[in-house]
Amino acid sequence: MAPLRRLVVDVLKPHSPPLDEFAGHLGEVESVAAVTATLIELDKEVQNVEITFEGQDLDADTIEAAVEEFGGTVHSIDQVACGEYVAEDRRTVRDP
Amino acid sequence: MAPLRRLVVDVLKPHSPPLDEFAGHLGEVESVAAVTATLIELDKEVQNVEITFEGQDLDADTIEAAVEEFGGTVHSIDQVACGEYVAEDRRTVRDP
Amino acid sequence: MAPLRRLVVDVLKPHSPPLDEFAGHLGEVESVAAVTATLIELDKEVQNVEITFEGQDLDADTIEAAVEEFGGTVHSIDQVACGEYVAEDRRTVRDP
Amino acid sequence: MAPLRRLVVDVLKPHSPPLDEFAGHLGEVESVAAVTATLIELDKEVQNVEITFEGQDLDADTIEAAVEEFGGTVHSIDQVACGEYVAEDRRTVRDP
Amino acid sequence: MAPLRRLVVDVLKPHSPPLDEFAGHLGEVESVAAVTATLIELDKEVQNVEITFEGQDLDADTIEAAVEEFGGTVHSIDQVACGEYVAEDRRTVRDP
Amino acid sequence: MAPLRRLVVDVLKPHSPPLDEFAGHLGEVESVAAVTATLIELDKEVQNVEITFEGQDLDADTIEAAVEEFGGTVHSIDQVACGEYVAEDRRTVRDP
Amino acid sequence: MAPLRRLVVDVLKPHSPPLDEFAGHLGEVESVAAVTATLIELDKEVQNVEITFEGQDLDADTIEAAVEEFGGTVHSIDQVACGEYVAEDRRTVRDP
Repeated sequence: MAPLRRLVVDVLKPHSPPLDEFAGHLGEVESVAAVTATLIELDKEVQNVEITFEGQDLDADTIEAAVEEFGGTVHSIDQVACGEYVAEDRRTVRDP
Repeated sequence: MAPLRRLVVDVLKPHSPPLDEFAGHLGEVESVAAVTATLIELDKEVQNVEITFEGQDLDADTIEAAVEEFGGTVHSIDQVACGEYVAEDRRTVRDP
Repeated sequence: MAPLRRLVVDVLKPHSPPLDEFAGHLGEVESVAAVTATLIELDKEVQNVEITFEGQDLDADTIEAAVEEFGGTVHSIDQVACGEYVAEDRRTVRDP
Repeated sequence: MAPLRRLVVDVLKPHSPPLDEFAGHLGEVESVAAVTATLIELDKEVQNVEITFEGQDLDADTIEAAVEEFGGTVHSIDQVACGEYVAEDRRTVRDP
Repeated sequence: MAPLRRLVVDVLKPHSPPLDEFAGHLGEVESVAAVTATLIELDKEVQNVEITFEGQDLDADTIEAAVEEFGGTVHSIDQVACGEYVAEDRRTVRDP
Repeated sequence: MAPLRRLVVDVLKPHSPPLDEFAGHLGEVESVAAVTATLIELDKEVQNVEITFEGQDLDADTIEAAVEEFGGTVHSIDQVACGEYVAEDRRTVRDP
Repeated sequence: MAPLRRLVVDVLKPHSPPLDEFAGHLGEVESVAAVTATLIELDKEVQNVEITFEGQDLDADTIEAAVEEFGGTVHSIDQVACGEYVAEDRRTVRDP
């Protein structure tokens, strides 16, 4: 398969571990060069976060396993970019 | 025909294979240099994704066949760019 | 006349040929360096697309003839840029 | 007077000549380096277009005469920029 | 006083002289390197324009006098920038 | 304390001195390299302005004293940036 | 854990110390290269501020302790970025 260069996932996680530790652990996964986690929403039990992974050849299964290892669940895969570089999806004149 | 350099398609796909595998396979199609798939909407059965392909001379038929091979259907072709380079469509002062 | 460097037209076209072939043929017109076609709207019969042509000295008549040759009709000319370079139309503080 | 480097005018023009010819002629006016015409609105009789002229020292009177020569009328001057370079008007934190 | 590098004023002016001449004269004021005038609104009597002046050390009084000399009145000073360079006011995450 | 590199304050000031003189004086405060004042709102008595100060090591107390010296009052401190450089606050995918 | 390069937190703080001193102290925390604090909202008792920290390997616990030392409380961690560089979270075509 063409190398996975960006993976954006919507994740539900408990409040613990805190987001900085959660992302710190995900950043240690072998294929991950950089990871950014943004809090979308939170309630008493869980946090809904969007996580952007970047790397030369991301291993989605290992990443998903790591998310689960630290108590999270991948709710959906929101974006993936594969190949020689990351092709940006652009808003066309039709998009609002 | 002038070489196809960007192809943006609206695709309906089943939940399996997951988006990262789906795009990984599409990224292996001969003429594809980079492919980005963005989840637009999903329900219990299907995912609606927008897929942006870039390359020097994309082969649209082979790409469409690969989408179908992995269970997807091209709902519409949203944008194409052909020629020596990609001419960006710009919002004019008339567009919202 | 000053050379035409960008031509943006609003076109109605039938579903066939598909957008990639339609733009591929338009990209072969002598004066066209690059062409981008964006789907604005579609219904059962026709597709409304916005097409951006760029080149050093575009020949609008030949382009319009090619659009018609492949089943389309130019609904309106939305933007043209002529001269030594393309002067971008900018939103002033008055525009929304 | 300080040299006029950008002139943006709101013009009403008949459907003929078409926008590409209209702008092509305006682009031949002596002081004009580049001209971009964007269709704002049209009805059965006329087209409302916004035209951006750029040059080192634009001659507004000659430009206005050329607009009229090809059937158009300048409805308003929307922006002018004079001096050593074009100072961009910027949205301040107060503007929407 | 620290040198004034950008001055943005809200001006009411009669229809005559036209905006290009009005700005052309303002561009001749000693300290002005560039001036951009944008039409905000107009009615039968007057035009409301926003004028952006840029220079190394703008003389606000002389500029205001020149505005009045050519029939305009400064309604408000909307932005000023002084010092070694122009510090851009940025929308913070709080601004809409 | 880490050096203060940007200070954005919300200020109420009387109509006199005018904004260009007001900012000109603030630009003379020792630690200020650049100052931009933007009019947010005005009524018969006062002007509400947002002032952005930039420098290598701004002295907030001296700046606040200068604002008061020329008749203004600091209504709130809206943003500060300290350290080796200015870290821009970015809208995350959660912000509107 | 992968090095923490950006930390964005939502903080409630009393009016004293003022925001410039508060951020100045946070900027002195060992791992912090730059810190920007933006006022989101304020009422009689407290200020709600968003604070962006950047550095090569931020120490979140020490930072949180410093926030508390100067009277603030971390309400939520809004964004973290870890790894070799900061991967920007991008609005996809799905986001408003």
